[in-house]
Amino acid sequence: MSQKQKVAFIGLGVMGGPMARHLAAAGYDVTGYNRTLTRAEAWRKGCADHGLEVLTAPTPAEAAAGADMVFTCVGNDEDLAEVVLGADGVLGAMQQGALLVDHTTVSADMARRIDVAARKRGLEAVDAPVSGGQAGAENGKLAIMCGGSAGAVSRATPAMDSYAARIVHVGMAGAGQTAKMANQMCIAGVLGGLSEAIRLASAAGLDMDRTFEAISGGAAQSWQMENRWHTMVKDEFDFGFAIDWMRKDMGYALDEARRLGLSSPISALVDQFYAEVQAAGGGRRDTSALITRLPKGK
Amino acid sequence: MSQKQKVAFIGLGVMGGPMARHLAAAGYDVTGYNRTLTRAEAWRKGCADHGLEVLTAPTPAEAAAGADMVFTCVGNDEDLAEVVLGADGVLGAMQQGALLVDHTTVSADMARRIDVAARKRGLEAVDAPVSGGQAGAENGKLAIMCGGSAGAVSRATPAMDSYAARIVHVGMAGAGQTAKMANQMCIAGVLGGLSEAIRLASAAGLDMDRTFEAISGGAAQSWQMENRWHTMVKDEFDFGFAIDWMRKDMGYALDEARRLGLSSPISALVDQFYAEVQAAGGGRRDTSALITRLPKGK
Repeated sequence: MSQKQKVAFIGLGVMGGPMARHLAAAGYDVTGYNRTLTRAEAWRKGCADHGLEVLTAPTPAEAAAGADMVFTCVGNDEDLAEVVLGADGVLGAMQQGALLVDHTTVSADMARRIDVAARKRGLEAVDAPVSGGQAGAENGKLAIMCGGSAGAVSRATPAMDSYAARIVHVGMAGAGQTAKMANQMCIAGVLGGLSEAIRLASAAGLDMDRTFEAISGGAAQSWQMENRWHTMVKDEFDFGFAIDWMRKDMGYALDEARRLGLSSPISALVDQFYAEVQAAGGGRRDTSALITRLPKGK
Repeated sequence: MSQKQKVAFIGLGVMGGPMARHLAAAGYDVTGYNRTLTRAEAWRKGCADHGLEVLTAPTPAEAAAGADMVFTCVGNDEDLAEVVLGADGVLGAMQQGALLVDHTTVSADMARRIDVAARKRGLEAVDAPVSGGQAGAENGKLAIMCGGSAGAVSRATPAMDSYAARIVHVGMAGAGQTAKMANQMCIAGVLGGLSEAIRLASAAGLDMDRTFEAISGGAAQSWQMENRWHTMVKDEFDFGFAIDWMRKDMGYALDEARRLGLSSPISALVDQFYAEVQAAGGGRRDTSALITRLPKGK
């Protein structure tokens, strides 16, 4: 870049923090904002430890003022509405020609609302939820599903490249969110079947390592089987993607399916099972803790 | 081999036929039996076309007499009981020291019954259901899950090597069948989630190729996604593993789960959904036709 591009990053949590740092490392002039100001300061110091100079701002609007691109990565619909559409939100402060890129997993409806609000101000928005978790954010190897115009996604791509292994444009506004929901529905079904298979094999006294070896090379194979079989067998769940987050995503997925007149019985059932695991205190555990609600047999 | 080993192969269908032919090609002296005698004759001619001389017998007992190993690959519990335990079944005709290897997918209970009956005669049995389908049988690349004593599985391995890419000993009598059931439960869950994900993405108007690209590299990945996404999107199901067979397997799996005091709600629900697809005339279609019972949306 002949001149440093100015970007704002709203939400400096376990995902947004390292993503914003990767932007700084890639040569962007980054101003960060976080609702909890001590976290913003910790992020600034963390960047400084990497030899990167960044700024922080006291409100989303002040972070976004004068930025060429504004990134958001917060918790849910309500959080996103506040930092984008609220009184101190970024949208009212963004300059003409600036681009809004949201990395939060939110409802497709919220993504469309933001798209409409941005267009009313003559701006463009991209909904760009990520997968790959905290490790993917730290290593800069996230997969990003993008909804929006082809032009807007192209404009956002060089910046997103600083923390992405894969960027795919799947459709218009809200499509990135919908792809993420499809992703979560697949995971729900995979873990539903896998949990029951592990209980069956284990209760029947099979050698679990050899059973994995026998079935993991064929039509039953899945990422979850390859990466969670051995931990599920050992009742280890204190890592990975938390059920609390999965329930949020499943709620959005089931809302969107309802809007589209679809039936999603497996997703709905697994979502209910996750509610049971949450109620039993397992909300912070990995999604593979779905198995914990199943009896171990006689 | 200094002297050709004699083997019998009971059941010369789309799976057993090529498996028996691979045994002949590997140097075994094979006698085949099939309930429909014209099919046995067609198999003999098919072997001759490959330059292989084989024999056929008019009953399972006559095929098994004098054999060192007896293989079975028939349809279900009832078929297997007939060819093994029936009046003309193999067990009464097998010589001392001979080994029984069953490749049918049957109930774990049937595998244990056969094991007990074999031991009463001083013989050993291996339950060895396969996966890999017709293509795997033709190419000699099946995966075989084995239950029985370590000694019996070792004895069967050189012969099974002629049509297997992978042979895994998972436990005692019935364990091979139980591993196959676990395999099918995993597939049921995967296809349940995948079907709903495809309906959601499609109804929302996403680019389906790009959505596949976006989600197939991460935590939602599965063999079924990689091999069935594009055909499911195009409503193509006239190939693969038939729902009629899947329902048989799921019935055995749910019976075994019941015996073990387990709960298998996702498997039970997908099994019911398959009953609907069967009732609508889809029993011969690939298991991925599970998606056909889901509405396509508004």
